Amino acid sequence: MAYFSPNHIFFNTHNTMPTNAVALLILSFFIQLLALPQTLAETNIFSEGTKYLYPEILKDEAVTRLIDLGKVSDAHGFLERTFQSPASVRAGNLIQEWMEDAGLRTWLDQMGNVHGRIEGMNPSEKALLIGSHLDTVIDAGMYDGALGIITAISALKVLNITRRIGRLRRPVEVIAFSDEEGVRFQSTFLGSAAIAGVLPVSTLHVQDKSGVTVQGALKINSIDATEENLLQLKYDPKSVWGYIEVHIEQGPVLETAGFPLGVVKGIAGQTRLRVTVKGSQGHAGTVPMKLRQDPMAAAAELIVLLESLCKQPDEYLSYDGQCMDSTVQSLAGSLVCTVGEISTWPSASNVIPGQVTFTIDIRAMDDLGREAIIYEMSNRMYQICDRRSVFCHIDRKHDANAVICDQGLSSDLKSAGYAALKRLTGENPDDVPVLMSGAGHDAMAMSHLTKVAMLFVRCRGGISHSPAEHVSDDDIWAAGVAVLAFIETHIN
Amino acid sequence: MAYFSPNHIFFNTHNTMPTNAVALLILSFFIQLLALPQTLAETNIFSEGTKYLYPEILKDEAVTRLIDLGKVSDAHGFLERTFQSPASVRAGNLIQEWMEDAGLRTWLDQMGNVHGRIEGMNPSEKALLIGSHLDTVIDAGMYDGALGIITAISALKVLNITRRIGRLRRPVEVIAFSDEEGVRFQSTFLGSAAIAGVLPVSTLHVQDKSGVTVQGALKINSIDATEENLLQLKYDPKSVWGYIEVHIEQGPVLETAGFPLGVVKGIAGQTRLRVTVKGSQGHAGTVPMKLRQDPMAAAAELIVLLESLCKQPDEYLSYDGQCMDSTVQSLAGSLVCTVGEISTWPSASNVIPGQVTFTIDIRAMDDLGREAIIYEMSNRMYQICDRRSVFCHIDRKHDANAVICDQGLSSDLKSAGYAALKRLTGENPDDVPVLMSGAGHDAMAMSHLTKVAMLFVRCRGGISHSPAEHVSDDDIWAAGVAVLAFIETHIN
Repeated sequence: MAYFSPNHIFFNTHNTMPTNAVALLILSFFIQLLALPQTLAETNIFSEGTKYLYPEILKDEAVTRLIDLGKVSDAHGFLERTFQSPASVRAGNLIQEWMEDAGLRTWLDQMGNVHGRIEGMNPSEKALLIGSHLDTVIDAGMYDGALGIITAISALKVLNITRRIGRLRRPVEVIAFSDEEGVRFQSTFLGSAAIAGVLPVSTLHVQDKSGVTVQGALKINSIDATEENLLQLKYDPKSVWGYIEVHIEQGPVLETAGFPLGVVKGIAGQTRLRVTVKGSQGHAGTVPMKLRQDPMAAAAELIVLLESLCKQPDEYLSYDGQCMDSTVQSLAGSLVCTVGEISTWPSASNVIPGQVTFTIDIRAMDDLGREAIIYEMSNRMYQICDRRSVFCHIDRKHDANAVICDQGLSSDLKSAGYAALKRLTGENPDDVPVLMSGAGHDAMAMSHLTKVAMLFVRCRGGISHSPAEHVSDDDIWAAGVAVLAFIETHIN
Repeated sequence: MAYFSPNHIFFNTHNTMPTNAVALLILSFFIQLLALPQTLAETNIFSEGTKYLYPEILKDEAVTRLIDLGKVSDAHGFLERTFQSPASVRAGNLIQEWMEDAGLRTWLDQMGNVHGRIEGMNPSEKALLIGSHLDTVIDAGMYDGALGIITAISALKVLNITRRIGRLRRPVEVIAFSDEEGVRFQSTFLGSAAIAGVLPVSTLHVQDKSGVTVQGALKINSIDATEENLLQLKYDPKSVWGYIEVHIEQGPVLETAGFPLGVVKGIAGQTRLRVTVKGSQGHAGTVPMKLRQDPMAAAAELIVLLESLCKQPDEYLSYDGQCMDSTVQSLAGSLVCTVGEISTWPSASNVIPGQVTFTIDIRAMDDLGREAIIYEMSNRMYQICDRRSVFCHIDRKHDANAVICDQGLSSDLKSAGYAALKRLTGENPDDVPVLMSGAGHDAMAMSHLTKVAMLFVRCRGGISHSPAEHVSDDDIWAAGVAVLAFIETHIN
């Protein structure tokens, strides 16, 4: 078995304590607790539950579960789990089992989200939601999304085992969202946007590359998603207290600065575009270069322009009215543009393509600046296409404005992170830094429903969306203890 | 039934003659024959078989067969027939039926080529080979390849029906080659190169995108291709008199100049490359532009360079030793470069790709010039990759030097074309022009075995490798009559 029964755990904890480094850490922590002055947060909020760091659940089992979930893939040899794919369904089932193992009441909703909830002492109180996504990109790492789900379940399992879960002042609900990456339908946050009530019902009819709709993909898995029950998925804002999410940073900031945990100040806004370039299809050997209307050569020029524009936006944007100085400065620091997919039709080496399509992903902290870049880029792209006598169409597939996290909730999460590091190391940590997120997260969608905050966990080399993605076992543990510490502030 | 029995045809010919325009043409022809001075070729070589233009076989049935063969596709909604695909096998069977209907002895060889042969009066005489290919590109037109096979079979069917086939002075063999486009294995002329004895046996182990080898693809269709029997496929040059091929022009020259037929002076040399660019895969939102090693942006820059280099080779090639003036001039007139395929890995819109691969197809009449361009292009590409800190690899997948067609054979073919146009219009045609071929053809491979010549047929708008590819019914007829006239010169 990959996880432990409650009795087994207690047994195990006591047995292993003297023989591993954890015992020393705990010992060290208690010494520090006596010897050092405590912060207000430490004294008031984190006074309970510090007896155990639960390495079997928050570290060993969490790591095992991450590895197990990382094996649930639609592909051989790499990790791929897209919305409602067979592997996504298997992953959902596994997560639901783990939620039940943690003592949660579970259900699957009409967008394929997996829920696990404990009502606590006051079922009518506003609920604390904790979530992340169960889908992945193609050739993904095993921490992106999974880490937030598993740390939340593990923390509640600790409360269940220690019989404190019934003392929660408010309901706590873990949600494993069915789609954040948007790989299959090019439209992110299918799961969280439905719960936040910001998913247009028309999304049900969006098609994947094979022509299967969102509704069809759910139907294959016996989920009946109609426009009516999609609207009913929306949570009543009055029933929700707030939303927190643990996620790997997916960037190099925490590692470079030497911190295992960080709190997110805000999430960059993003736009996804699909560019279609149509030219004149023909034989590669018989159409002279000067007579070609080659959409591939045109697409290459567009991509070179895009990179140049996003590397030096100040050289392209005019300051007279189009942009404020501050906007351009913000763009220069945060703007990133990516072409991740490209394809030609008919895709043969000896045929001048008739059509090329590619995606553009644009992100920036400044929403106005992002719009200015899209405007400038589109204008210049259409000019290039006109000059080359090819037809261009830029289709806006997805938009999400930047989100600024809730200050109070972020402060609580920072305190929890601080407490966790202190519990683990026995020392006052230098800091739990505050950083921006270039990656989008379900918290963006959830911000339309309630206040949100996010805890970032350090990853190796800043690498994500890659099998090389890695979070150390100790950092996973730190994240689990931080979630536990945060939830403990809602215990009577 | 799509084609006719011999009796049916004679019957039909007589019945329909008075009711269609053909009768007028024939009448006009006979009038011209009496009234106008005849060329030497007309008088000496084409004195027989001018009584009938066989529209039922050389026009109507040929067009019907082109349409029928054009429906044999692996794809729904467009034409796709790659080496040894199910549709290729079905197409081969259909062609074999038509060959038998023309009175030919048929067989399938170990590279999937379909042969139809008539021994004539002297089975030990050197054979005239007539061929073209039965495979297609993806989203192909229905004339490319098929026209050459069907006109040859139709011409021999006429000789069979008119009981002249037994009077052939030498064997005549029609070959429908299994692969000319090279779509599946990125290595063209699998069929004709095997017969010419220039296909390396290692080709058997080349893999397609799914990992299936050439040998495996044949095995699926119960063809046992070993290295040994591949070597045995090679024809003895002493047993072959020459090779001719009818093909659609696939370019705009004949249409622009207003000629239905043309004779090919030579075929451009070509090289196919596969470029792999490897960078640092990562999350589209978290890696700053300046820190990226993005293989997609690099690939775009490489493709822009390629286009520029091939549009203006004189601006890139140095004249001091690297190239002669004449080479650069030839390149400026004939050089064409195409990127037909491109793909990213892992191919998701929110992931900076870890790898991009694309194909390059380069053609030129001047072989040294083509080499100079590849050398210059490679150097500049590696420089770009170095500057961008990405890894580049340029893999040479296929090479074919330019081929100059045999002068005597071309002259005979030109005379046959001339005679055909005269028979059809009743007038001395203005010309059967001589032109170069930018497209590669099986004749390139066959030139390693024997003397070769090619007849080009006008196509609409110069368009090929596209469903818009079109040859008029009259031009198909003209091509059929030309092949018939050519074969008739080998009748006692």
